Amino acid sequence: MTGSLVIAGLGPGSEALITPEVTAALAQATDIVGYIPYVARVRAREGLVLHASDNRVELDRAAHALSLAAAERHVVVVSSGDPGVFAMAAAVFEALEAGPAHWHELSISVLPGITAMLAASARAGAPLGHDFCAINLSDNLKPWSLIERRLRLAVEADFAIALYNPRSKARPEGFAQTLSLLQEVCGDDRPVLFARAVSTPDEQLRILPLSEARPEMADMRTMVIVGSSSTRLIARASGPILYTPRSAMAGMA
Amino acid sequence: MTGSLVIAGLGPGSEALITPEVTAALAQATDIVGYIPYVARVRAREGLVLHASDNRVELDRAAHALSLAAAERHVVVVSSGDPGVFAMAAAVFEALEAGPAHWHELSISVLPGITAMLAASARAGAPLGHDFCAINLSDNLKPWSLIERRLRLAVEADFAIALYNPRSKARPEGFAQTLSLLQEVCGDDRPVLFARAVSTPDEQLRILPLSEARPEMADMRTMVIVGSSSTRLIARASGPILYTPRSAMAGMA
Repeated sequence: MTGSLVIAGLGPGSEALITPEVTAALAQATDIVGYIPYVARVRAREGLVLHASDNRVELDRAAHALSLAAAERHVVVVSSGDPGVFAMAAAVFEALEAGPAHWHELSISVLPGITAMLAASARAGAPLGHDFCAINLSDNLKPWSLIERRLRLAVEADFAIALYNPRSKARPEGFAQTLSLLQEVCGDDRPVLFARAVSTPDEQLRILPLSEARPEMADMRTMVIVGSSSTRLIARASGPILYTPRSAMAGMA
Repeated sequence: MTGSLVIAGLGPGSEALITPEVTAALAQATDIVGYIPYVARVRAREGLVLHASDNRVELDRAAHALSLAAAERHVVVVSSGDPGVFAMAAAVFEALEAGPAHWHELSISVLPGITAMLAASARAGAPLGHDFCAINLSDNLKPWSLIERRLRLAVEADFAIALYNPRSKARPEGFAQTLSLLQEVCGDDRPVLFARAVSTPDEQLRILPLSEARPEMADMRTMVIVGSSSTRLIARASGPILYTPRSAMAGMA
């Protein structure tokens, strides 16, 4: 078997944030597999077959990519951000486990990318400069009770909290519940970053206290970062800087 | 004032993992500021001044970079990985707050990079494919009691746990205590990844159950990732894949 499967991260949007390793993999591919808007980010060329599929069919897409690689194609599965963070890499490995035994010996590699929280954090300053966690608010794949439990423990641990997939049309109530919970346990002054479509022409940044955060400030292109108890704002004429100092006291948590 | 300060992430080691945005910033710089081994990764050229400093002088280094930018230089502060994750961005903002008022109006930007946990995760599979946290084990900047508290809450939340700076010659005991604590609360079978110097010629990967993990398996170039309760191994002739499925049950935490 001489096919191969590469699971590559395209970063948050800008070409300037795609690693040379990923660019080289795209140049060598025979087939690109992914969600429609991510496949659209790959430049079409003679002999490159684009397989774009809709959202919420991750396992089918992963199995398709594996079967193409088993048929000796050189396949790149594209994800936004980093493929290992709430993206296609885990889906491919789930499909691999469920599939035929010969898939196990395919050449498979994962190429990292700039995940949304790193891009958002960089634009705002350094809110993830101390210990932090990342929680996917999509409740397609886990119950709300587990999300709530993790949010409470994350606040108790005094992590800065990066919230992926905060809100979709199909389930707007989850993010409203998240904000209520955080407002209840963190107090009103905790700074929150809403970073939408970072590094694209649609980029929008908003930093405000938790008491002023509203569910409609986020959509599926928004990354939300909630500061820890020590996250600070530096006011400047050119716009605020949000950052979390490197040191912490025992009493802070 | 026409100087500028860019805080850039060089990724984990390989040039193929440096974003084009960072490469362009390095090409435009007049001055590079950073820890000796990171400055050594920047190609010297006519007119580029390299300011390499030793470890543990982050605030002095940050103030130096700000004063150069205030003197109309185009300064790039280089970090390994991502500058916003346990690296120089927070130090620069701490120095900015402590410094003269005119520093506040300097042009400052942060350019993200591939942080160590993403590079390590990609090499092993996708251990960060579900909710996770990142904890810096260096106790220079926080007391052990706080680290211990965060580790316990992270396990209770059932996060996969990325451990940065696990061990140095100056404080070998912290990582030994961390492993003991995790062995006590997670049980013996939890998979652990030791990923050393990922993407460099010194790269070494090791995946083993928590019961077999030993403090001396990590040094300051090692990223340690402890799986959640649902992190799985796929056995293959060509080496195991470590990944965390995308879905979780309420009872798992």
